[in-house]
Amino acid sequence: MSLSQRTGADDPLASWNDGPTKKSIVAFVERVTKAGGVDYVAPEERIAAFDNDGTLWSERPYPFQIAFALDQVKAMATQHPEWQNQEPFKSVLAGDLKSVIAGGHHAIIEIATATHSGMTTDEFEAQARKWLATTRHPQTDKLYTEMVFQPMLELLAYLRANGFKTFIVSGGGVEFMRAFAELTYGVPPEHVIGSSGRLKFETRDGEPALVKLREIDVVNDNIEKPAAIQKHIGRRPIASFGNSDGDLAMLQWTTAGKGARFALLIHHNDATREWAYDRISSIGQLDKALDEANAKGWTVVDMKNDWRQVFSFEYATYRSEDRRI
Amino acid sequence: MSLSQRTGADDPLASWNDGPTKKSIVAFVERVTKAGGVDYVAPEERIAAFDNDGTLWSERPYPFQIAFALDQVKAMATQHPEWQNQEPFKSVLAGDLKSVIAGGHHAIIEIATATHSGMTTDEFEAQARKWLATTRHPQTDKLYTEMVFQPMLELLAYLRANGFKTFIVSGGGVEFMRAFAELTYGVPPEHVIGSSGRLKFETRDGEPALVKLREIDVVNDNIEKPAAIQKHIGRRPIASFGNSDGDLAMLQWTTAGKGARFALLIHHNDATREWAYDRISSIGQLDKALDEANAKGWTVVDMKNDWRQVFSFEYATYRSEDRRI
Repeated sequence: MSLSQRTGADDPLASWNDGPTKKSIVAFVERVTKAGGVDYVAPEERIAAFDNDGTLWSERPYPFQIAFALDQVKAMATQHPEWQNQEPFKSVLAGDLKSVIAGGHHAIIEIATATHSGMTTDEFEAQARKWLATTRHPQTDKLYTEMVFQPMLELLAYLRANGFKTFIVSGGGVEFMRAFAELTYGVPPEHVIGSSGRLKFETRDGEPALVKLREIDVVNDNIEKPAAIQKHIGRRPIASFGNSDGDLAMLQWTTAGKGARFALLIHHNDATREWAYDRISSIGQLDKALDEANAKGWTVVDMKNDWRQVFSFEYATYRSEDRRI
Repeated sequence: MSLSQRTGADDPLASWNDGPTKKSIVAFVERVTKAGGVDYVAPEERIAAFDNDGTLWSERPYPFQIAFALDQVKAMATQHPEWQNQEPFKSVLAGDLKSVIAGGHHAIIEIATATHSGMTTDEFEAQARKWLATTRHPQTDKLYTEMVFQPMLELLAYLRANGFKTFIVSGGGVEFMRAFAELTYGVPPEHVIGSSGRLKFETRDGEPALVKLREIDVVNDNIEKPAAIQKHIGRRPIASFGNSDGDLAMLQWTTAGKGARFALLIHHNDATREWAYDRISSIGQLDKALDEANAKGWTVVDMKNDWRQVFSFEYATYRSEDRRI
């Protein structure tokens, strides 16, 4: 029986409605795994790359790592008395998010680098794990790690069951994502690629330690994604998955390789069950990549119609009036 | 039957002579893999990190990638007429290695960056593969990929058979090492970490390409090794293997973790079968790390006595008068 004909409990992609999107995924996997087939790809070459924010979990009202950074400003404030009078920290501590946002990209970078440096990598991991285990999304009241897309969890598992190595290639901070990626996605730390700051090896309390510096090493977005793939994986993915213009270069790089290739974009068009945004959104803008997907015949997930279920929890817990940002 | 009691064809470490060195390796692996044991380590945490030059293959008369770079100067000379009158390229083209060496570290960096940039990553991979498939070591007349240490090949395989993930963490160029690491060591590209230059994503001949820039991104040696491990693997190794002071920080980082840990240094003391060098060598200097290994009880491989066989080929092909540099 073909996988595409499986239903119910037999179906590894049970949260995907039947239709061309699901069919394109299954057809690709069957093509590259069919022994002796013209498009057969050896398991070691079956590299699949996934963006994270907006692709594996939600990114609204703003990417969840920003929520973490804002909370960390409060948690770290006693060690930084100067923040009481220094923007953008002053506004964060006053709960004045509008002023923070008015500070634009610069303010966000300030907050992110300040809250992601100064500690050892072990200390940071503990902070991120604690926050992820205890903090809830302001609108759904769910843990952030519950706001992952059930169809994408199934897709990750389906690909791995078919011999793929699944990598995360995201603009998110690599150490933040690693704090939950293995438990949540089944993706081990060494398969997580993200933005990172410089590290310094030094002795702290008589023990060797890696200290997170404030200096940014790489912002893993846009044209940096193919470069990061080359540096970390050293092989071109045969399949990649994203949701925004920041993923376009990765999808171009993936599909320009020889042999069977697969590219997928998630179109957030479901304001009832998740969020609806695309061409003019400041977060997860999907404009040029959508045009290119249409022109090149890449798979575009119509979230509203292609996903039987978005999250593993019930939709009813949502308050619909909060859902649009 | 304990692995340490196996002999002959049954022995996964047949090229290691019986003795305390071999015993320490087997004892460690048995400790961390024994289900229910106090030192048991789950497979996903069984990370082993290996230096390459001088640890997995020889590094004399100079690291093999330098031989590649010198040959590439000649191969690329027609595209660079200016090199005829420009040091250190002029000396390389004239076959005057002494003048090149007189140029010191700066000259080597010049040659390495010039020959490792300007092309796409695909083009570079093809160049490296071609060189590795055709070029022979000046003293042994063997392909460079034949100059790998048979006992270390067995050790890599033995660790993987026991659920370890084996990584290379080397000062060598990441893309050069990936050109042979999978076939030679069984280490896939995504498990190879090395020095690297910046990459630029651009369109060449209508196709997306990653172009190797001349700007160095990271020199993966010394205290950069623990940082690179954190960035790429995101987990601290429980075992690491090196041969020089450039590996000291990696071994410190490895052994400072909780639970059972293993650190090993290869001491090149076999001028008959390989080379003999340590504290005052300009290549692969082993001085501080040897002191620390002795003080902390790390395993030190006495190549002369611990290795039954160094290479897979016969020693007799050597010309002993060429062996000391």
